[in-house]
Amino acid sequence: MGRVTVRRKVTTIDLSTPSTTTRPDTLTVEEPLELRVNGTPLTVTMRTPGHDIELVHGFLMSEGLIRSADDIALARYCEGAVVSGESGFDENTYNVIDVTLAPGVAAPAASATRAFFTNSSCGVCGKASIEQLRAQSAFDVRSDATEFAAKVLAELPDALRTEQKSFDKTGGLHAAGLFTADGELLVVREDVGRHNAVDKVVGWALLSGRVPGVGCALVVSGRASFELTQKAIMAGIPCLAAVSAPSSLAVECAEDAGMSLLGFVRGSRLNVYAGAHRITTT
Amino acid sequence: MGRVTVRRKVTTIDLSTPSTTTRPDTLTVEEPLELRVNGTPLTVTMRTPGHDIELVHGFLMSEGLIRSADDIALARYCEGAVVSGESGFDENTYNVIDVTLAPGVAAPAASATRAFFTNSSCGVCGKASIEQLRAQSAFDVRSDATEFAAKVLAELPDALRTEQKSFDKTGGLHAAGLFTADGELLVVREDVGRHNAVDKVVGWALLSGRVPGVGCALVVSGRASFELTQKAIMAGIPCLAAVSAPSSLAVECAEDAGMSLLGFVRGSRLNVYAGAHRITTT
Repeated sequence: MGRVTVRRKVTTIDLSTPSTTTRPDTLTVEEPLELRVNGTPLTVTMRTPGHDIELVHGFLMSEGLIRSADDIALARYCEGAVVSGESGFDENTYNVIDVTLAPGVAAPAASATRAFFTNSSCGVCGKASIEQLRAQSAFDVRSDATEFAAKVLAELPDALRTEQKSFDKTGGLHAAGLFTADGELLVVREDVGRHNAVDKVVGWALLSGRVPGVGCALVVSGRASFELTQKAIMAGIPCLAAVSAPSSLAVECAEDAGMSLLGFVRGSRLNVYAGAHRITTT
Repeated sequence: MGRVTVRRKVTTIDLSTPSTTTRPDTLTVEEPLELRVNGTPLTVTMRTPGHDIELVHGFLMSEGLIRSADDIALARYCEGAVVSGESGFDENTYNVIDVTLAPGVAAPAASATRAFFTNSSCGVCGKASIEQLRAQSAFDVRSDATEFAAKVLAELPDALRTEQKSFDKTGGLHAAGLFTADGELLVVREDVGRHNAVDKVVGWALLSGRVPGVGCALVVSGRASFELTQKAIMAGIPCLAAVSAPSSLAVECAEDAGMSLLGFVRGSRLNVYAGAHRITTT
């Protein structure tokens, strides 16, 4: 449970020396997490163990299946999900989470168990995907009048990197962080999947009373896709800043929702793709 | 159709000058692709348009739903998937593909439409995921006796990068390439999603009579996850080389299947995580 890294033997070939050395190396752990809602399996994601309760909160929020932390009555590791341990006794895998929705909260439709927002029910073109997101979103990020100073935003990727405890060991983790407009770090989460890192951050925000994320910026270590933009909008976060490139649909989606989207936030330069009115340079 | 990049306005803030400039920028296109099998919607993936027929072949192969190109009788864009075009006439979105399976090929089970191999039916722990992959795989990559020279493998990421036509413009695309053990490039595909780039390569291989991929190496521009390792094994490719880090489950999966897995293949150095017997240094 909660193993973020694991040690494995690796053989390094250096052609310049030349030399071949075998040594222990640190790898990012990747394990399946099954989410069951009211007893019915909903999805499985490959993730890095840890902060799993946040992950499922963030996932359900992103998919529009819950709108507040109160919509979940109980979230816990399934007691019956066991494997034979090395000790000879059964051990919990900590890879199955049971979520019980609060009374009155609709269980996912049968179609939701096969067709998620991000990857299935979003229609046949980008425009339909954006319209569906607009219909699902509980928060209006356009009305968030917070201003973000370019100077503050430019420093956030380095602040995120400093907090990436596991990346230095493995080089194999994505990170997402939530910051205030003043640049104060609220939370950082790492995962082998960048969507999971963002779900963990959103789940933390939900459990901490920070949803909608008014006045906050979500910073991600990689690229900005439609999926990550969707997650930010569904959590009511008015600004998404990515270290790498955004996709066409991420930009269109941000524009439609009135969210500020920045890419290539590196060193002293940053690109603003949408919502430039919120970014100040003085 | 086939739009890989699109031009959009971007505002670049340079704090060192300081200056703010607005100019056209090139973005990677991201659009949904819906796959229907025998008339039933199976999945939607967010992908970069282009090579979609290859993409669906590779996807169906990776999921164990087909075992050869002959298992697909017909794959074509759905004629009914239209939106109102700027011309006032309906235009095909080219975002829906209909696949008709050959007679005698089983349609995906009802459970498959909600539970994919990679992300749902793979059990509650990494070990179960690997066992399921072993059961599904049609090819035995362990028996592939091809040797790969470290010197040749070390040069493949640069060869891949040279062929990445869109990356230079956008910085936002993943690439996957298939090479022979002699270092001959067979195919390169780019996509906003790295799993899609690999599906396109596998689909190309399937349609070109190159599955199983005996004697071939799959090279990917990013990290090696369980999912990418699975796709290589399902296509019978004995060697996967990644520019970045592998996950724990990718390494365990490669070891179980007898596949060679390399990571951090950069410059003159490369790390061998599994199947070192196939990698030669002389």
